[in-house]
Amino acid sequence: MPNVIARRGLMLVLSSPSGAGKTSISRALLAREPGLSMSVSATTRPKRPGEVAGRDYHFVDTETFGLMVNRDELLEHAKVFGNYYGTPRAPVEASLASGHDVLFDIDWQGTQQLRQTAGRDLVAIFILPPSTRELEKRLTSRAQDSARVVAERMAKAADEMSHWPEYDYVLVNEDLETSTAAVVSILAAERLRRERQIGLGDFVKALREGQ
Amino acid sequence: MPNVIARRGLMLVLSSPSGAGKTSISRALLAREPGLSMSVSATTRPKRPGEVAGRDYHFVDTETFGLMVNRDELLEHAKVFGNYYGTPRAPVEASLASGHDVLFDIDWQGTQQLRQTAGRDLVAIFILPPSTRELEKRLTSRAQDSARVVAERMAKAADEMSHWPEYDYVLVNEDLETSTAAVVSILAAERLRRERQIGLGDFVKALREGQ
Repeated sequence: MPNVIARRGLMLVLSSPSGAGKTSISRALLAREPGLSMSVSATTRPKRPGEVAGRDYHFVDTETFGLMVNRDELLEHAKVFGNYYGTPRAPVEASLASGHDVLFDIDWQGTQQLRQTAGRDLVAIFILPPSTRELEKRLTSRAQDSARVVAERMAKAADEMSHWPEYDYVLVNEDLETSTAAVVSILAAERLRRERQIGLGDFVKALREGQ
Repeated sequence: MPNVIARRGLMLVLSSPSGAGKTSISRALLAREPGLSMSVSATTRPKRPGEVAGRDYHFVDTETFGLMVNRDELLEHAKVFGNYYGTPRAPVEASLASGHDVLFDIDWQGTQQLRQTAGRDLVAIFILPPSTRELEKRLTSRAQDSARVVAERMAKAADEMSHWPEYDYVLVNEDLETSTAAVVSILAAERLRRERQIGLGDFVKALREGQ
């Protein structure tokens, strides 16, 4: 009888308005979960200082990106501020098939696209700030920004937050530790979902036959 | 803005073949989760020494039980070895409406009945023994039983186990601590499901309007 039941990996999406704390939660989660890796996007935007190709992004030119789109090699893609961003399909498929989970830091548009192809492999979590005041504080303290820039960010955040009903789970980020623990629980629970444990049929068959 | 988002309670079902460790997990879970209470069944079977009416069972006569069925006051009911057992609807509904979760120790037949009325309120977990040998050990050590009685129990367990595909989550009970932690994770995750957080719409509205 097998000791470990074969499992299909899952695609864990974290979305939130900027300033809700998603990046900190992602980092804490990756540090705590060795079976989880971050999906590395392809992008046409130039590499910034400190960024590492293949770790932060796959940096490609516009022609290559266009080819990837045409060959259906991207799970989702979008144009943001004149640059293209997309999720390469092959490494994600390989991870899921080998029972490893993949983390995605994408917005509601990417999530909508992913859901169409991913189906039940997708587990989407939306993270909300605890209050408007807290959100404003986080969006302001990030840099020395003018009131106008902060107001624009708040409007964008309000727009993002309107998409919470498209997610499986919603959590209010009061503090990093509680929120990270909540995402760890969601991951642990989703790994135990019947339909992900593809080896269960064989396991129960062996149990029933007394092997 | 509300600090705590109103939530609808959930119905947590644990099912397993006899000897898989469900009762120990239920006890450990109830000790750890103050927001969770056990559903108390109604039954027509006589009270046994040590049992407390209203805690272990609601003891009723057959006529009363029949009236409860006719008035649709039971969420599920079944006849086992000549006695009737059923789950009173009213206390469960009251718990769910006030945001409290209810634990059910019922078999696959009860779970099938519950699912028809409970819909999304239901979270059903199936617990499997780690091996046939372990199951046989637990079913034997329980009392001084003859080989025939043990064989009958093993056959009944095999029959029970055939119903794992009807459950949302399946876990293999290797040890009590790991299994209890797994159920705690499932409970924590399910509480964060969007559709249970009935106050989310108002919360996000307030966030977006900057209140």
